[in-house]
Amino acid sequence: MASLHGGAEERGVPGLANALVVFSQTAEDGEIEVQISVHRLMLDDNARTQAYKQAILSQANYFSDKVVLDVGAGTGILSLFCAQAGARKVYAVEASRLSSLAERIVINKTVENVCLPEDEKVDVIVSEWMGFYLLHEGMLDSVLTARDKFLKPDGKLFPDIVSLYSAPCSLPKFYDHWEEFHGLDLSPLGDEERRLKGSQPDITEVNKDDLLASHQIVCELDLYKTSSKDLDSISSRQVFSVSREGRYQGVCLWFDCSFPSISLDATRVVLSTSPHCQQTHWKQTVLVLPEEMYVTEGDPLAWELILERGGDDWRHYNIQCTLLDPEEERHPVPCECLLPKCCLIREIIDKHAQTLGSQE
Amino acid sequence: MASLHGGAEERGVPGLANALVVFSQTAEDGEIEVQISVHRLMLDDNARTQAYKQAILSQANYFSDKVVLDVGAGTGILSLFCAQAGARKVYAVEASRLSSLAERIVINKTVENVCLPEDEKVDVIVSEWMGFYLLHEGMLDSVLTARDKFLKPDGKLFPDIVSLYSAPCSLPKFYDHWEEFHGLDLSPLGDEERRLKGSQPDITEVNKDDLLASHQIVCELDLYKTSSKDLDSISSRQVFSVSREGRYQGVCLWFDCSFPSISLDATRVVLSTSPHCQQTHWKQTVLVLPEEMYVTEGDPLAWELILERGGDDWRHYNIQCTLLDPEEERHPVPCECLLPKCCLIREIIDKHAQTLGSQE
Repeated sequence: MASLHGGAEERGVPGLANALVVFSQTAEDGEIEVQISVHRLMLDDNARTQAYKQAILSQANYFSDKVVLDVGAGTGILSLFCAQAGARKVYAVEASRLSSLAERIVINKTVENVCLPEDEKVDVIVSEWMGFYLLHEGMLDSVLTARDKFLKPDGKLFPDIVSLYSAPCSLPKFYDHWEEFHGLDLSPLGDEERRLKGSQPDITEVNKDDLLASHQIVCELDLYKTSSKDLDSISSRQVFSVSREGRYQGVCLWFDCSFPSISLDATRVVLSTSPHCQQTHWKQTVLVLPEEMYVTEGDPLAWELILERGGDDWRHYNIQCTLLDPEEERHPVPCECLLPKCCLIREIIDKHAQTLGSQE
Repeated sequence: MASLHGGAEERGVPGLANALVVFSQTAEDGEIEVQISVHRLMLDDNARTQAYKQAILSQANYFSDKVVLDVGAGTGILSLFCAQAGARKVYAVEASRLSSLAERIVINKTVENVCLPEDEKVDVIVSEWMGFYLLHEGMLDSVLTARDKFLKPDGKLFPDIVSLYSAPCSLPKFYDHWEEFHGLDLSPLGDEERRLKGSQPDITEVNKDDLLASHQIVCELDLYKTSSKDLDSISSRQVFSVSREGRYQGVCLWFDCSFPSISLDATRVVLSTSPHCQQTHWKQTVLVLPEEMYVTEGDPLAWELILERGGDDWRHYNIQCTLLDPEEERHPVPCECLLPKCCLIREIIDKHAQTLGSQE
């Protein structure tokens, strides 16, 4: 047991005078193996850090005097925000031998093996567990374990609702670039690059103008109810109606996560990794299609996405994307695509609306 | 043997109709292991690609009908520039099993084991062999081997003169950043990061405004004369006079390389990786000092830099930087620092100039 109290106060962190930040075990004095630069990247991701800060500090009246568990605390930044917000105690659990900084003790233990003193339960679990395409690295399981072991029945999860989205897109930097390069056509290099990329999802920044249709939801998880088993396999059949003509070259994935608003005057804070928002270190995840296709407005597109835990490393996922025949899929109602059945449905809905309108 | 002729022409590359690009061996049909994305990074480095393009294409009258050897051809972009410039033949040698693209054959052989047909000699060796801080990865040795084996006595090297520079600098992103982070003082994290970085040079972008003195040359290599042995150990004792006050936190290294101007109307093209120029993928190399020091204008600084080939991997270098007592070092003449001897020398020079002036 060690207290951050003195240290934090000495360093002049405002609002920490009332907080006792307790780390649950002394760190091994072993070598520090994890490069701080990875954490620096995450800290420097302003959308990420700012969302957590706002979600926590805007509800200081809720956090006041609460007991918090920070799962996968890393550099401890979320713990410090909770302490700033008035938390009475923050247990920071970190599995990697990240660092034993001056006034901080980080344990080399997974949350599965943690025991809080006198089987204490916590009011809040904060965690920044999201990986690429939300699920990569499977750290959510640790949060769910912590929830089941340590969260009070009315306790809160920060974040508590997460969603994975997808949309068809163009990938100009994997195509256009090679076709005219300093007066040379290097498209064979582009073909090769795409072939290599075809074997695994690529983490890259997708421009919002390169999305070819409105996004669809792959899955939404309510973290109070989700079980580890639910994460073994996630699948979704999706139909899109092209809203911008262009070269259909990839499937773009991203996620949002949303924080509870407990205080009456607070609104839900959403951290979005959408191409429509400020880019984050998660960027977007792209599945590069083996063949491109030119699509125009109103064209229907369909695919089935399956995310399954990998065999050897259960924390990794295999992503499978199967392009489907959109004519054989059930479309949303109404659907903007130009397939006869969808045009017909739109017409019926329009007429119905007119009829209702004329009856008013 | 395979010809790029047909392929290049079919793909409409201008200026290739007269060029026969010959690759010296059939590639193994083995798996492609090197990620093209590394080469993409280099191709996308516009300062790099543009410098080679300009150095080569601006001297098309020299390249016309010449035989060229491209050492470490990678994606073959330099070979294509030479072909565009009118080269009769381009031998492209690539040691890695990079890729066997449609119309291109890249050999899986080091240049040391290459034999050109009928012991042909070449007019030009082009190569982009530079690593971080110029020498990292030691690919220059392969170019020197190729020079000794294949270059005609009056043949040219592209590039032919390279220089390594150093200057003292501030490293705000390794310091300032942590001291005020979302209302928190995370300086222990910064200390830790710098401690980790202390064990090896960091590749990072240094802002020109963070340089604290004019740069000094660590070494200049004339590649017509340099031997592999010259590269085993490079050292330099350097004295700087601080030109901008600030926090002296690191030693910044970068390099320039310069291409021959053979045509009468051509000027030397210089590819610079200086903080004063457009940033390249080489960025700058920084040695983070264990302690920072506040310096003001006129302060003298001195160090000895030693770059030595590593023990286990002779292609890697160990860099050692020893801070010296500037009072005990020989300063350049004139030197702008405020040490009495340098002030005195400046005064004498000034007076001498006045005397000379009054005699005129």
